[in-house]
Amino acid sequence: MSRLLKKSKKGGLPPGTLVHVGEKKTEKVRISIIDYDEAHLQEKEAETIEECFPFKEKPTVTWINIDGLHEVKIIENLGKCYGLHPLVLEDIVHTGQRPKMDDYETYIFVVLRMPNYNKENGEIEDEQISLVLGENFIVSFQEKQGDVFDPVRERIRKGKGRIRRTGADYLAYVLADAVVDSYFALLEKIGDEVEKLGEELVSNPTPGTLAGIHRLKSEMILLRKSTWPLREVVGGLERTESRLIQEGTVTYLRDVYDHAVQVIDTVETLREMVSGMLDTYLSSMSNRMNEVMKVLTMIATIFIPITFIAGIYGMNFEYMPELKSHWGYFIALSVMAVIGVWMVIHFKRRRWL
Amino acid sequence: MSRLLKKSKKGGLPPGTLVHVGEKKTEKVRISIIDYDEAHLQEKEAETIEECFPFKEKPTVTWINIDGLHEVKIIENLGKCYGLHPLVLEDIVHTGQRPKMDDYETYIFVVLRMPNYNKENGEIEDEQISLVLGENFIVSFQEKQGDVFDPVRERIRKGKGRIRRTGADYLAYVLADAVVDSYFALLEKIGDEVEKLGEELVSNPTPGTLAGIHRLKSEMILLRKSTWPLREVVGGLERTESRLIQEGTVTYLRDVYDHAVQVIDTVETLREMVSGMLDTYLSSMSNRMNEVMKVLTMIATIFIPITFIAGIYGMNFEYMPELKSHWGYFIALSVMAVIGVWMVIHFKRRRWL
Amino acid sequence: MSRLLKKSKKGGLPPGTLVHVGEKKTEKVRISIIDYDEAHLQEKEAETIEECFPFKEKPTVTWINIDGLHEVKIIENLGKCYGLHPLVLEDIVHTGQRPKMDDYETYIFVVLRMPNYNKENGEIEDEQISLVLGENFIVSFQEKQGDVFDPVRERIRKGKGRIRRTGADYLAYVLADAVVDSYFALLEKIGDEVEKLGEELVSNPTPGTLAGIHRLKSEMILLRKSTWPLREVVGGLERTESRLIQEGTVTYLRDVYDHAVQVIDTVETLREMVSGMLDTYLSSMSNRMNEVMKVLTMIATIFIPITFIAGIYGMNFEYMPELKSHWGYFIALSVMAVIGVWMVIHFKRRRWL
Amino acid sequence: MSRLLKKSKKGGLPPGTLVHVGEKKTEKVRISIIDYDEAHLQEKEAETIEECFPFKEKPTVTWINIDGLHEVKIIENLGKCYGLHPLVLEDIVHTGQRPKMDDYETYIFVVLRMPNYNKENGEIEDEQISLVLGENFIVSFQEKQGDVFDPVRERIRKGKGRIRRTGADYLAYVLADAVVDSYFALLEKIGDEVEKLGEELVSNPTPGTLAGIHRLKSEMILLRKSTWPLREVVGGLERTESRLIQEGTVTYLRDVYDHAVQVIDTVETLREMVSGMLDTYLSSMSNRMNEVMKVLTMIATIFIPITFIAGIYGMNFEYMPELKSHWGYFIALSVMAVIGVWMVIHFKRRRWL
Amino acid sequence: MSRLLKKSKKGGLPPGTLVHVGEKKTEKVRISIIDYDEAHLQEKEAETIEECFPFKEKPTVTWINIDGLHEVKIIENLGKCYGLHPLVLEDIVHTGQRPKMDDYETYIFVVLRMPNYNKENGEIEDEQISLVLGENFIVSFQEKQGDVFDPVRERIRKGKGRIRRTGADYLAYVLADAVVDSYFALLEKIGDEVEKLGEELVSNPTPGTLAGIHRLKSEMILLRKSTWPLREVVGGLERTESRLIQEGTVTYLRDVYDHAVQVIDTVETLREMVSGMLDTYLSSMSNRMNEVMKVLTMIATIFIPITFIAGIYGMNFEYMPELKSHWGYFIALSVMAVIGVWMVIHFKRRRWL
Repeated sequence: MSRLLKKSKKGGLPPGTLVHVGEKKTEKVRISIIDYDEAHLQEKEAETIEECFPFKEKPTVTWINIDGLHEVKIIENLGKCYGLHPLVLEDIVHTGQRPKMDDYETYIFVVLRMPNYNKENGEIEDEQISLVLGENFIVSFQEKQGDVFDPVRERIRKGKGRIRRTGADYLAYVLADAVVDSYFALLEKIGDEVEKLGEELVSNPTPGTLAGIHRLKSEMILLRKSTWPLREVVGGLERTESRLIQEGTVTYLRDVYDHAVQVIDTVETLREMVSGMLDTYLSSMSNRMNEVMKVLTMIATIFIPITFIAGIYGMNFEYMPELKSHWGYFIALSVMAVIGVWMVIHFKRRRWL
Repeated sequence: MSRLLKKSKKGGLPPGTLVHVGEKKTEKVRISIIDYDEAHLQEKEAETIEECFPFKEKPTVTWINIDGLHEVKIIENLGKCYGLHPLVLEDIVHTGQRPKMDDYETYIFVVLRMPNYNKENGEIEDEQISLVLGENFIVSFQEKQGDVFDPVRERIRKGKGRIRRTGADYLAYVLADAVVDSYFALLEKIGDEVEKLGEELVSNPTPGTLAGIHRLKSEMILLRKSTWPLREVVGGLERTESRLIQEGTVTYLRDVYDHAVQVIDTVETLREMVSGMLDTYLSSMSNRMNEVMKVLTMIATIFIPITFIAGIYGMNFEYMPELKSHWGYFIALSVMAVIGVWMVIHFKRRRWL
Repeated sequence: MSRLLKKSKKGGLPPGTLVHVGEKKTEKVRISIIDYDEAHLQEKEAETIEECFPFKEKPTVTWINIDGLHEVKIIENLGKCYGLHPLVLEDIVHTGQRPKMDDYETYIFVVLRMPNYNKENGEIEDEQISLVLGENFIVSFQEKQGDVFDPVRERIRKGKGRIRRTGADYLAYVLADAVVDSYFALLEKIGDEVEKLGEELVSNPTPGTLAGIHRLKSEMILLRKSTWPLREVVGGLERTESRLIQEGTVTYLRDVYDHAVQVIDTVETLREMVSGMLDTYLSSMSNRMNEVMKVLTMIATIFIPITFIAGIYGMNFEYMPELKSHWGYFIALSVMAVIGVWMVIHFKRRRWL
Repeated sequence: MSRLLKKSKKGGLPPGTLVHVGEKKTEKVRISIIDYDEAHLQEKEAETIEECFPFKEKPTVTWINIDGLHEVKIIENLGKCYGLHPLVLEDIVHTGQRPKMDDYETYIFVVLRMPNYNKENGEIEDEQISLVLGENFIVSFQEKQGDVFDPVRERIRKGKGRIRRTGADYLAYVLADAVVDSYFALLEKIGDEVEKLGEELVSNPTPGTLAGIHRLKSEMILLRKSTWPLREVVGGLERTESRLIQEGTVTYLRDVYDHAVQVIDTVETLREMVSGMLDTYLSSMSNRMNEVMKVLTMIATIFIPITFIAGIYGMNFEYMPELKSHWGYFIALSVMAVIGVWMVIHFKRRRWL
Repeated sequence: MSRLLKKSKKGGLPPGTLVHVGEKKTEKVRISIIDYDEAHLQEKEAETIEECFPFKEKPTVTWINIDGLHEVKIIENLGKCYGLHPLVLEDIVHTGQRPKMDDYETYIFVVLRMPNYNKENGEIEDEQISLVLGENFIVSFQEKQGDVFDPVRERIRKGKGRIRRTGADYLAYVLADAVVDSYFALLEKIGDEVEKLGEELVSNPTPGTLAGIHRLKSEMILLRKSTWPLREVVGGLERTESRLIQEGTVTYLRDVYDHAVQVIDTVETLREMVSGMLDTYLSSMSNRMNEVMKVLTMIATIFIPITFIAGIYGMNFEYMPELKSHWGYFIALSVMAVIGVWMVIHFKRRRWL
């Protein structure tokens, strides 16, 4: 449940009081800076946040990435330097935000959530990724060190593609694209699980299959909660009239938007398929119950009447003429056999056998 | 049911006839006034409503809080002094309103509902909070004394944050924020209950579990009814073009709006999870029924045929050759054993055992 | 079904051919006129519709109320006098209309439906109320005499509130308000029934409870059909740009709109609660079935095997060594007891007891 | 299924290639012409389509009605004469169109579907009605001769109502109205059936009742498919800014629109009621199953233990002291009776009896 | 599952890096060119993509069709020649796109999906069709050779219809029309299957019927996922204000739009019908279970009591007066018969027989 209801508010404190809300997921805060333009590239691991400030004045694109949010002083100082609104800083450190995009004129604030499949307990966790996109800088905040942005760093270093020739808005697109990509990876894993359960369902359903279906269903509910706002955010970025987003970048954002829509489509489709599997399970279980009942009824219906006949001739009345008859026993056995066979024929006709 | 359908109308009376509709939740009406600007702060408990009137003319921000709505005369006089519309006064004392926001040009009238988890009977109750936001004043109405606004008072007293430097609209934001926060507290409690029931469901489901699920489901229906309009209200405040809301405050209202959306998201997600739990319960019960039926069928299918054989040799026919045979008894026992074992093997093959 | 599908059309006749369609609910048509302004009040029961015509020229507000729609001549003459469109007259006498509002520039035509709980058969009936709002007149049409407008008449007579100081549009608001109020009264009755059924469900569910739930569910479907358009109608009145609605009245119409929304909310919530009750009933019935099956299985599983043992020693084989043994009987009894006790312990472990 | 998926396309042919797609429902194509204005009326059955062409130039209103669509040459020539777009002609002869309205500036093309209850197999069939509304003409196309337009012809002949005084657009309204009216007739029949099934359900449900419910449910799915676009079409006609629709006619079209909405409302309500009936059936069946199980369990629980006792004293052990006792038999009988009575009391307490 | 979640992204690579993502469905890439205007027609199979470039300058309409997407170099070169955006090229070779339409001013990029019923495994596969529509050219991309565009080629060759007289936009319409047509063919096949299953359901339902219903349900979920965006795409083409689409073509696109809506309607209707079939299956199975239970209960209820009586007189008590009676046996038999007959009458009354 902790995943569902991240405590996203500290009650009663005035807005702008920075208190980290959420699990502390990393020990040490790591600040890394990449500063580049087409010709030049500088990379640096900063010890203190103050080392980032000189980059503010430079015309080159500066990307500051901060992993770990529990040292609020760092975020506060950064906020002061870049003139961020207290609510933005609050949203960064309260890590239970819904994905959203807010345009503060001189910068755009974006919150995204990056899902992560925890292999150990089979649960989907997610992490808040906050981005601040300014004129010539991006600050990104992650709850813990991750490797999702590494390919982006690599591309900047190698100067591949458009990334070095364009501004901070293109970098923002690349980062958002990387986050949306992580959903595809997750959905593929879930898709595999759905497929596996689907096969289990057909070949050999066990109570574990049912549990698996219910678990997947819950996961889909939670995943759906985080993917719907994703579309709004990316769509908002694409449609915004902020001068921070250049026209050439809009085409790329539209591409991310298409991917976000595809993620939602796939989540919905998987959800419906899992629901369908539950129906399949229940109806096949109902089928089996029917089979069991038929067996019981057949056995009972064949043997109860003939056992009754045996019971009759087991009575100890002094005067029971049949008992004296030499053929009595065999006649009784024959009658029983006839009844039994008749019942079986009857069941065959009703298609119970 | 009383919670569902608060009598919000008095039939046939002309609008503006003030009659308190709702439960009387407090004995004595309590009127408290806080008047402040950046430099100055005055706090006062008023005996009569007339003591509030002088504050109207002052340029400082005045916050009048009224706990208890059954003395309609007080509300009527206050209304006359501040020029409130009769329908506003009516909505204040009819405590079954749906959350709403009405813009009356010189003031904005807001109705909110504050949920409250009653620990004694496990039900969610809610209380109507009405706010009148004017140029330099706020009047807030509560059905009974509560502690939800205490931290706000504390912040005003201590002069922490922006609250003393800004106008009445910022105070309105702070109060609305406090109300929305109370939903988070409630949802956390419900989330815990859902989690507890979910674990019970897996480990040891009882009829009490089912009752708990049904109760939670009803609670979610009622909670949903009060949270959807909440979003409209806060969204309306954010988008209003009233000159009473300053531009700087809109950013803060957007933040409350985000929280309201998060509340709705969480309510919906909890609702779906509770529905999912009901499905789980029913399917696991169906599973158990299947198990019970299998046991019955197994026992019956093994013993009914062999009991029949015993019945045959219990018949008292004079001429039954097997009875005379020395090994007859043991052969009969063996045949029974063979049938029994064959049945068990059969069941194993069908995976009934 | 007659309630569902009121014949609202006469096939093939040209529009404007006035034929009363619907049940004749009153014997005699009753025409009552109230003419008033702030200073003056005239009340009159008219014998013929022509008596109403002189009031048309007067600057005072005239309210003509007609109970009973089967004498179409009256409606036709009235229509000619006030210049009403043939389709308006048609809609008035075809009493199966959906609530709607049409703006004909010189007048506004409103159709509402007033629900009524029939205590005899427990069904919800409803009646069509048509209103024509002109410059300084209102004509209201009811299918039969009712007392819903009596408090309004009383208020006009006593000159209480704004009613005598304002125009025909305010009177229209008051009448619409009275109709919407009648929904609250009905919903309260339904709410009581839901509560009663809910308690029955917990304490002592009978087949009658199930029937009650299904009946309520049908009622909610029908009620929902008539309440959704209600909101559109009142919302349309509030938003219309017709010069017939003065600005001061819009605030009041917004209030009725809020009430209409509250009615719909409550209908939806009741609907969901009734659906939830059906689920509760079915799952508790499923629970009981489980209990019954467990009892059957327990009895059968304990006694079938030991009855089999009794059957064995009831066989009449000549050579059955156990039968000769002095302790044979008691050993057999003990074995049966052991099997029985072992079964009971087994069931206890499986939590069947 | 043929009803569901009318082949509405001929694969690979260029648009405008006229091939009749659909069932041939009439032998001979019938062309009837009515030409009128306020003073004058001419009626005529045409042998060839060319007889219609002279009417095109006349200022009077011309209504050409064509029953039977399999002779595409007729439609092609008519299209050339009146300058219809190839796609319009294609849509006319491909009789599986969804209701729609297309504005081609000089004429408006409308496709409607007219439902028809086939009494023989109890299925709902529908027929495509195409209308082309021009400046002073209407061409209507029906798949087969029907009597739905007969009352309209009668009204034109008698000169009743507005029909002779107004233009072609009013005639279009009258025809659309006639089509929408046919839905009311159908819904009334379905409503009767729903009512009949509802009563059967309460008094004496049979498997036939269930089949009836499922059949009705399918019918509602198909009916819904054809009624939703109906609203769009009529709404489109009402809102169109084409100069072909005069302002006075718009009021009448709004009336048809209201009826279309009422049709949809009723279809939805019937659909929900039929779904509710299915629930009722299933829950009452579940109830009966419960009853059956209770009877079985009661009988088994009473007799299995006492049969066991009888079995004990049927054993043939040599030393069974009770057997020798003079009162043994009566004591055994009494014990059995006590157990039986105790069971019955037990069941009464559990409310099983 | 592979069908559901086509890997549509290569993680971490910069946009514009062309890597074919998807199954390689054809061995050799086939490039075919058709160049035409009203008077002239040239057809050609190109060996290298460079052969297409000279056509770019010609004023005639050029249609380049490429079957097979795994040789990305071809697509890259084509993209350079026609000035296509890197994202367009990426979308062409990543064959898991959602249908979409993007307007790049000098050309319009359209992605469609063409469904295909695989007869071997009964699954619906689909293939991505990409179209680039420029001033006087169209480039179409298919994953493998197919025959869906053959009738179009034939029409161009024969110069039938408008196709040779109009521009590239009309050709785009014809191609889109061909793709939408392929949905009708598929839906007809599914419709037949639904009908077949429906009949099986009524006459002789087997577990295979249930499996068939579940398979169809999954297919409908997937089909729905691909048809909804289809409507957006065609609607987007119709409403676009691009100068590439001439006014005369819009009418034709509206026709395709109507067909797309009809496809969606049919998919939804089939979906609901399949769901209804599942309900039918489950309720008929429930019915059968009821029948089985009744038989079991009847047999048990008739024979268990009379077997008990037989058991009583099988007891070996020394003093059992009835046993001595001459008529005892016949009286016992009669009592048993009476009980049996009474039970049967009882069941008849309860309508169990």
